[in-house]
Parts: sequence; C-alpha cells; structure tokens
Amino acid sequence: MGEFDFIARHFRPLAGAGAMELRNDGAVMDLPAGEELVLSSDTMVEGLHFLPDDPAKTIAQKLLRCNLSDLAAMGSRPRGYMLNVSVPPHRHYDEAWFTDFAKGLAEDQKTFEFHLLGGDTTGSPSPLVLGVTILGSVRKGEALRRDRSQPGDGVWVTGSLGRATLGLQARLGALEDEDGSLTQAYRVPTPRIGLSLYGIVSAAMDISDGLIQDCGHIAEESGVSITLYEERLPLTPAVQKHLAQHKERILLGGDDYELLVTCPAAKEAALQAQCAAQSVPITRIGEVREGAGVTMLDEEGKPLRFSRSGWQHF
Amino acid sequence: MGEFDFIARHFRPLAGAGAMELRNDGAVMDLPAGEELVLSSDTMVEGLHFLPDDPAKTIAQKLLRCNLSDLAAMGSRPRGYMLNVSVPPHRHYDEAWFTDFAKGLAEDQKTFEFHLLGGDTTGSPSPLVLGVTILGSVRKGEALRRDRSQPGDGVWVTGSLGRATLGLQARLGALEDEDGSLTQAYRVPTPRIGLSLYGIVSAAMDISDGLIQDCGHIAEESGVSITLYEERLPLTPAVQKHLAQHKERILLGGDDYELLVTCPAAKEAALQAQCAAQSVPITRIGEVREGAGVTMLDEEGKPLRFSRSGWQHF
Repeated sequence: MGEFDFIARHFRPLAGAGAMELRNDGAVMDLPAGEELVLSSDTMVEGLHFLPDDPAKTIAQKLLRCNLSDLAAMGSRPRGYMLNVSVPPHRHYDEAWFTDFAKGLAEDQKTFEFHLLGGDTTGSPSPLVLGVTILGSVRKGEALRRDRSQPGDGVWVTGSLGRATLGLQARLGALEDEDGSLTQAYRVPTPRIGLSLYGIVSAAMDISDGLIQDCGHIAEESGVSITLYEERLPLTPAVQKHLAQHKERILLGGDDYELLVTCPAAKEAALQAQCAAQSVPITRIGEVREGAGVTMLDEEGKPLRFSRSGWQHF
Repeated sequence: MGEFDFIARHFRPLAGAGAMELRNDGAVMDLPAGEELVLSSDTMVEGLHFLPDDPAKTIAQKLLRCNLSDLAAMGSRPRGYMLNVSVPPHRHYDEAWFTDFAKGLAEDQKTFEFHLLGGDTTGSPSPLVLGVTILGSVRKGEALRRDRSQPGDGVWVTGSLGRATLGLQARLGALEDEDGSLTQAYRVPTPRIGLSLYGIVSAAMDISDGLIQDCGHIAEESGVSITLYEERLPLTPAVQKHLAQHKERILLGGDDYELLVTCPAAKEAALQAQCAAQSVPITRIGEVREGAGVTMLDEEGKPLRFSRSGWQHF
C-alpha cells in the first residue's frame, strides 16, 4: 500500500483544526490567551506494551489514554496529538486492522475532545511501534508537579489498583479473569481527565510504573518519605481474589493510569468534593512524612519487603 | 541499565526551560504573544532511515535535522522537541553509543537554538526506533503552506540535489564517494532554518521524498502543474560525475532536505536577496503552469519518463 493513500484513508478523517488535513510539512496550533502548552509522549511497542492479538481498537485507545493520563497528572486538558506509526510488513496489520485502529482513535477523540494534528508513518522490519506526543493546555503556572509534597500531607489514589497488571497475566493465561474486568482494564485504561486539582493537591502524577515506584518518584522529587497502608488500598473484588497469590504484582505492577496525589489536610474536603463532582472514586492510602523512600505497612504495622521496585522499561 | 538512570545520564543534560529536568509526567511550554505553534514529527528506524554502523552522533543530528527541515518548510523557528527512543537489547547500543548520540543532540541544540522538552524511552525487541516531535513557532497566520502556488510562479530549490541519495549508495558500496561529500550529505543534512520567506513565496515544502514526488505534492495541493528543466538542476561536481549512471536516483531519491518553493515573478528579487543574506544558494529550476502533474524536460525539451514516482515509506 502507498504511504500517502494509507494516510489519507485512515488518518485524514481524524485530523482537526491546525492539521491542515495533513497536507503540509507540519501542523499549526494556537493557544488561548493566558494558557501554556503541556506536552507528553508515550511509545507502545508490539510485544512489550500490547499483544499482537489485542484488538486494534483497544490498542489505539490505550495509546491515546496513556498519554491522556499524563496530561491529567499535570492538570491539563487535551488539545491535539501527533501520531507516529512504524508498520511491519506482517500481513496481520492490514487494511481491516488499521480501519479498527482508526475507529479506536476516532472514538476517544470524541470522548476526550481533542484531535489528530499530524505525525509520521514509516515501515518497520519487525514490531509495530506506535507513538503519540500529546498536547494539552493549562492556565499559566497551574500545571501540577511532583515536587511540592509536604510532611503531613495525605497520599491519595483515584479508582482502584492492580486490575491492569492482572489483566496482562490473564491475557498470558496465568490466571482466570472471570468477569473480563481485568482484561478490560489492561486494554482500555481510564485517564482521569477533567479534575480541577490546582490549588488543592501538593503533588500529582499518574501510576504507570507501579504504585511503589511511582510513590518513590514523588518522595524523591519532593524530598520526603511516603508511608502506605496495605489495608487501605482500593482493590476491586476481582483483584482481591488474586491478592494472596499476586500481592507483589498488584503493588508493583504498572499500567493502572490512576492519579496519585498528595494533599494537605486542610484541602482534603475540596479534593473529595472535586472527585465526587466528576464521579471519580478517591481513597486515602497513606501519608507523607519527613525522610526518604516509600514504606508499605501491613495490617500489623510491619513493613512489607519486595523483591524488586517496579516496572522498568528496559 | 535502569531506565531512570539512563535518562538522567544521557538526556537530562539536554533538557531546557519547561522540561522541568524531565522529572514530571510532561513538559510545559509557553508561546510569545502573537505567535502560534508549528509541529512536525519524524521517525527513523534502524536499517530503513539509517544504517546501524552510521556514527551515533550523525544519527542524532539527522534525526533533529529532518524535523528542523519541516519547520524550515513552514517558515518556523525551532523552540523544543520531544524525543522517543525504543532501544533493542543489542550490545551495539551501549553507553558509549548513547553518549555519542547525546553529543550529536547537544551540538545541534546549540547550533539551532532549541532544547529537549521531554519524551519516552522504551525497549524494542529488534530495531532501534528513534522519533522526534519538534515544536516551533511562527507569527500567527504566517506559516508557509503548499497550496498557494499560481500559474506563472517560478519553482526554486535551495542548495543542491542528489547528494544524500548517492551518499546512501556509497554507504551500501554501490558507488565511490571520493571526497566524502555524498556520505556527509546523507548523514548530516542542512535544514534551511532562518530564512524569512513569508510574503515572498507562494508555496514551500522540504524535499524529503525526492524532487519529482515533492513537486507533485505542491502541484496537487495548489491545483497546478509544474514543469522542471533538467539542465537547471543544481548538482555538485560529485553528483554530476554519477549523473549518467544514476539519473533516476538523483531525481527521485529522497533525503535532500532542501527547500522547494514557488515564487511569483514580482518577488524573485526578494527571494534571492533573502537567500543571499543567509548565504543559502537558491536556483530557479522550473515554473508553475495550469493543469496537473509534474513534467521534467530534458535539454531538447522532451519529457523524461521515470519507472517510479519517488520514495514511499512502506
């Protein structure tokens, strides 16, 4: 298939304002007065970040949603994205596959109100490699950061933990996913776009590399320690069923794409009200203390020990 | 090696304003009043866009320069870039390789006055895949486009043609590159950043997919035809030496990263003055006519025929 026809068929219908129908060397984007740009980028590689037999539509959605989650972590709303696709000659990635892939993109563009700006399509000798650079905006100076946590702040997490990492295990045949909720969470995360947390939380990030490791990022950047309580972790019944056998995986596994925030006591009511208004569950799972590092305490108050720290990309 | 240490060692020193030292989920970028953002993205795949034994430093430079060339084609100056790296476990891509790669990035950041904003690093089961999304800015409404050529305009090209495509052949052992100029052009293109062509040219793009095909893009987007004259093409002596044997390759091969513009007769003096001020050679190689398609005429005024239209990415 020809590159230009391929782009015209699958991606031109996704292009919005500023993309100039993907007919130029680049795209143009304007920012409203008083806003600044927020940028993030995520690459997904076949076999590492998705399985070749995952549905094309959910691969597209996961690609956008991992990036949307980064914007959510910075308190930003999405405006557009650049898409990079390196396609292997494998017949699996055919017209039908890319039609479904584009459908997934289109659906999430509508859900999250943003659009394709441009990108690049190349070949690849072997795996399918998908990249998105997402552009959002935020009022100047109001981007959320990781480095403002203070001792005494509470540690909070949206939604629930561990579903996606167990979903991957279910996909690999290592456990049973009776109601399909684990697989669904692995394939289609829910980015927490739309919460207005500036002035409420002291630090924010999304959990992509596992709860413990990501708490470690906030602790390191803010120069504090974080203490978590195992019994407070929000786990769905489907996850709880596997807790005994897969505890380390649930605590260290990645792909949750939930928001992890720290919040001063005086702002907790505002945090809960903001989340309730958006129907986003949020749970207090620990607290910020002086010191360094992350500790998780079990029901008896003893620190859990882990054999590794979390997901490393290579 | 750990992902976070790897990023800290090689990429944190490249991060500039808004990148927040690569310590958050994303980057923040501000735009001066009255400017809008220009975006472009290019992916380079080992074996397709560079050879594994090309120097790491020139691979880095080519990656940035392909993207810079897109900004030049839109009349934009660079501000920052997002870098996506998918690294195979192959021992060739080791610490020393990435140290050189980062050197190439650092050098070009200085030359072209922009900086790293953020990105993503992942593994890859097989080839090294490198992606850049570049961000530039331009005064609102002044981005150059491909769709404003008018019959009667001249067709102009900066620099010279065919060196990079012959450089690739030299690298593959298919021809002799006596003075090394062909290989150098293949490895380190010269993006034409810094020309102020708004209000002078009627259309602009960069030649990345080959002269004939890229002229075809302007012809199609502007609804015109383009006639080129073979004897007017700017060719260096090193290219002329291979003209008889490699004519089609020189005319259709990609990777030149020269600017292709169309210009009304009344603006030709301004175009030449602007290029002279920046020491950029520019040559009138043809003209825009009514109709459709691209024709190249030989010295006797006969149309050349080609066996293919130009570089297709897959």
